[in-house]
Amino acid sequence: MKVKILGSNSATPANGRNPTSQVVNIKEQLFLVDCGEGTQMQMQKFHVKRNRINHIFISHLHGDHYFGLIGFLNSLALYGREKEMHIYCPEPLQAIIEIQLLQELSFPLRFHFLNFEKEGLIYSSDSLEVKSFPVDHRIDTCGFLFLEKQRKRILLPEECRQYEVPQYFYKRLTTGEDYTRKDGEIIKNEWLTKEGKKPCSYAYTADTAPHEKYFEIIKNVDLLYHEATYEEKHLDKATDRGHSTAKQAAEVAKQALVGKLMIGHYSSRYKELDTLLEEAQSIFENTVLAIEGEEVDV
Amino acid sequence: MKVKILGSNSATPANGRNPTSQVVNIKEQLFLVDCGEGTQMQMQKFHVKRNRINHIFISHLHGDHYFGLIGFLNSLALYGREKEMHIYCPEPLQAIIEIQLLQELSFPLRFHFLNFEKEGLIYSSDSLEVKSFPVDHRIDTCGFLFLEKQRKRILLPEECRQYEVPQYFYKRLTTGEDYTRKDGEIIKNEWLTKEGKKPCSYAYTADTAPHEKYFEIIKNVDLLYHEATYEEKHLDKATDRGHSTAKQAAEVAKQALVGKLMIGHYSSRYKELDTLLEEAQSIFENTVLAIEGEEVDV
Repeated sequence: MKVKILGSNSATPANGRNPTSQVVNIKEQLFLVDCGEGTQMQMQKFHVKRNRINHIFISHLHGDHYFGLIGFLNSLALYGREKEMHIYCPEPLQAIIEIQLLQELSFPLRFHFLNFEKEGLIYSSDSLEVKSFPVDHRIDTCGFLFLEKQRKRILLPEECRQYEVPQYFYKRLTTGEDYTRKDGEIIKNEWLTKEGKKPCSYAYTADTAPHEKYFEIIKNVDLLYHEATYEEKHLDKATDRGHSTAKQAAEVAKQALVGKLMIGHYSSRYKELDTLLEEAQSIFENTVLAIEGEEVDV
Repeated sequence: MKVKILGSNSATPANGRNPTSQVVNIKEQLFLVDCGEGTQMQMQKFHVKRNRINHIFISHLHGDHYFGLIGFLNSLALYGREKEMHIYCPEPLQAIIEIQLLQELSFPLRFHFLNFEKEGLIYSSDSLEVKSFPVDHRIDTCGFLFLEKQRKRILLPEECRQYEVPQYFYKRLTTGEDYTRKDGEIIKNEWLTKEGKKPCSYAYTADTAPHEKYFEIIKNVDLLYHEATYEEKHLDKATDRGHSTAKQAAEVAKQALVGKLMIGHYSSRYKELDTLLEEAQSIFENTVLAIEGEEVDV
């Protein structure tokens, strides 16, 4: 699982930085998270294969998180896309998109509306679950948790041969099944396999003030993206506007015992980001900056 | 009068080119013509002073001509603009903008709806008139004519002294008034002044197939922007889609006796623009390409 940053600025483009957008890459399936203006240009610039995107997650209806969506969808249609596109978003976004469509797109749009009262499973496949969870911003806003499903168990080839397990059964072993021999003897799965790699998890908390309502769901994630709009000296502005300082983001990361913290959604007032990074690292060392075009391993 | 190009591609961003947008600069008053996605980023890149824009002209409702408008307006509000903004556009655009506003902007928006049946004066100031005129596209589309008002007459200082015209009257001389002496003798304006420079004119024909309905209004303009989406070998596509080839654009320029032709709205299929330019210049030599960031004198 990797996360590529397409936009890292807050509110409006500035200092050469674009409004928020990210691409979560899970084995070359791409999931778009927020879609500020210019996202489709950033995809071209940073070589994102737009046709691998089938699911788009929009956290809230501040324009810096969705003004690029209509242009992206329109371009997909111009290039002849036929596969349906799923959009997970606040309900009013459907009308905003539809009023701008002069004719039907070349592909179906499927809207799934977010619940701002409680967390919930919004997407599930063989290998991945995505949950939405409410955060604490000025308007209804959700974060998203990307959670790899339990990875397959890893075969121990020597043991499999020793117990004479036929090859056709190997696939079932990786899902945890025991093997029953013809004579009725049960060969325990744990004798034949070992645990797979720990499943990855990525939490995106969108725009939010620090709030305990989402601490539990992001607990222990490998990578946490937490907005850090302001330096500590602008704490009053952060509080006023439902945003966080870099220090607050780092305190969340520390309390939630995450593996790594990525901060972003920088205020346009900061041309340089060093202070934000330093302030976060003073609390939670394993912090990185969201930098457009860069990809972070989960 | 100068025209700065912010976007020159058709339909969707490609080849590093943005969708359509231009800024007409008349003595540092700026008029925005169309506003594709990313226009506000282009303004930053090319040092356009956004607060000097008080009038925005949107030719039609294909997204590549207006998807950047909501983001631009939103950013102006974030930066605290208070002065009203006038938008000249197809009527449905008002609802498209308003549905995306979570709260009132910090400044008033004044919508003025275009007439697609006939040409009309849509803006007038001391020094400038703007007219809209219908063109021939797949949907209702208007072009815009920017017409400087007759320039002031230029004083002949020696003659003014000779006829003993008092200085307080000089300003009235520049508007063409005769001077009446105390003894009742009339001093003709033409003895005291000479004609000012010819007023400038710029015509923007938006997206259109060549059509005689707009030939008369663009006649003799100093600079004509005419779309040239396709090379001549793709004439069938141009015809199908209500667009023009470079050759057709040049034929319009030739027939309308314009001073200079600027072509743009390039199809994404063309990475290089040389052929488009050559095809146009073979018919109308004084042709230039619309290049983003470049400014063309009218």
